[in-house]
Amino acid sequence: MQKIVCLLEINEEEKAAFREAAGENEIVFINSGKREFVSSVSGELFADADVIIGQPKRSELKYAKKLKWLQARASGVDNYLEPGKVGEDVIITSATGAYGVSVAEQVFAQMLGIMKRLPQYRDNQRAALWRDQGDALSPEGMNILIFGTGDLGSTFARYCKAFGAHTIGIRRDPSRPADGIDEMHGMDEADELLKSADVVCSLLPHSDDMIGYFSYERFMSMKQNAVFLNAGRGPVVDTMGLYRALEEGHLFGAGIDTVDPEPLPQEHPLWKQPRLSITPHSAGGDHLDSTLSKVAAIALENLKHYLAGEPLINRKR
Amino acid sequence: MQKIVCLLEINEEEKAAFREAAGENEIVFINSGKREFVSSVSGELFADADVIIGQPKRSELKYAKKLKWLQARASGVDNYLEPGKVGEDVIITSATGAYGVSVAEQVFAQMLGIMKRLPQYRDNQRAALWRDQGDALSPEGMNILIFGTGDLGSTFARYCKAFGAHTIGIRRDPSRPADGIDEMHGMDEADELLKSADVVCSLLPHSDDMIGYFSYERFMSMKQNAVFLNAGRGPVVDTMGLYRALEEGHLFGAGIDTVDPEPLPQEHPLWKQPRLSITPHSAGGDHLDSTLSKVAAIALENLKHYLAGEPLINRKR
Repeated sequence: MQKIVCLLEINEEEKAAFREAAGENEIVFINSGKREFVSSVSGELFADADVIIGQPKRSELKYAKKLKWLQARASGVDNYLEPGKVGEDVIITSATGAYGVSVAEQVFAQMLGIMKRLPQYRDNQRAALWRDQGDALSPEGMNILIFGTGDLGSTFARYCKAFGAHTIGIRRDPSRPADGIDEMHGMDEADELLKSADVVCSLLPHSDDMIGYFSYERFMSMKQNAVFLNAGRGPVVDTMGLYRALEEGHLFGAGIDTVDPEPLPQEHPLWKQPRLSITPHSAGGDHLDSTLSKVAAIALENLKHYLAGEPLINRKR
Repeated sequence: MQKIVCLLEINEEEKAAFREAAGENEIVFINSGKREFVSSVSGELFADADVIIGQPKRSELKYAKKLKWLQARASGVDNYLEPGKVGEDVIITSATGAYGVSVAEQVFAQMLGIMKRLPQYRDNQRAALWRDQGDALSPEGMNILIFGTGDLGSTFARYCKAFGAHTIGIRRDPSRPADGIDEMHGMDEADELLKSADVVCSLLPHSDDMIGYFSYERFMSMKQNAVFLNAGRGPVVDTMGLYRALEEGHLFGAGIDTVDPEPLPQEHPLWKQPRLSITPHSAGGDHLDSTLSKVAAIALENLKHYLAGEPLINRKR
């Protein structure tokens, strides 16, 4: 008999499915009633937990001495993988796959909006100004270069293809294909591909060796009329490098959902760059109702596998 | 031997293709050097023209006494079809099919942007404010109701389907299917369908019996959280009816590229409605470089048909 603690804010139907999957095992649901990422619960609840489903704080996890498996609510589980944070024999699985639609939709909305000059039209609207801003762009026939071709990049690529674009992926191991990516290349070819891309989209997870990768020099190597997007980790972009390139008239426009630093301070010059579109890290997270259903479905599938002694999906350790 | 006058601003490659198609016939190109819709040319040029390709002013057309065929540059040719405007025995063809991508892309950009609250995030950016605006919407699984299922509506529907939406079309003759439309209905079913749609998109051409169709009452019959879009003719929407519904907190948001009146006067209250997104009739027209290539391709195909005595495409009279 195992004890399962589920922190996900799920509906009654989903709870029933979890209860059925749990069978004779004990399952406890903690609902805050709000769809929040980090539930703050009494750490003691974890004292005899074999399984935790959700996004427990690391300060609470220290109580989970018996923990065998943690199914995270997030896609990235770097924080749990750091040495000493979660017992080394604890299995850790992520919710990779639940966030692709949410993030890719917003990135696509930013991209297409920039191409149609919607940020400028919004500014004009605030000034009660009926003024044509001239030529627009279309993804049709464009080369769209995507850094990071996991769930987010692959979903974004599929949307781009529906609009007639050609999609080029960059990943560390280019021999692995990804749905929606027409051609895959390794990091060593990225600098060459940057020069001919019409859109460059960064959906890279955090990694120390990529900090500041998108530098002023790399922005200047892109086409004068290229569109740049970032909804991966913020520090992958050199903030002031992007600002300087835009100020010098380079790039058609840029849209960023993540930035370094976050939150962007009120006095930061980036806010005032008219060809830049900033959203406050709102692409993923809990912004879509459907995201949590997808997290719950992944967790439920894994719970069934776990109790049947089968291999888990999204296993990170 | 026929005389063909081509007003399209086309490139050298396209000109060569037209010349080849014209064969022994005379073909004259009038390029303003700018991609503009209405070319103002000396009417006398038309005096011995058998064929005009482009968008001649009606005041100039009166010189075209020998005209046999007019291939318009626009999708709608209502102005040429009015009695007395163009000789009744003149064949008139349109450029229907050239504008679908341009209009549908911008409508889609407005829709997805509204769902992700990008207009509000733009306002926040102007105020240097890093603030989460809460829940977003996703087209995935939505019912998207599209009025007008020709080139524009069908293209828009295909994009919606790529994002997982279910598309419902409204057309006068619902027995005619359209690419991208999952289910087609007639106007008599529209009021019932309005009540359950998550998105309502008007891409209707002008027709006198549809003026003011989208009234305050119809907006209030829509779901409280519905998104409304108009990039068809402006007067199909009762401007103040839309304004009143939004002011009363109805609808998640609305995006309009056309409005009654146009241009929207500076003092009009519509400008200040924060959940409304206004673009200045910029979805179609000559905003995309690729649109003119598509117009030229349609005209070229028709020129070949015409000179071979074959039936023309897009024939309106």
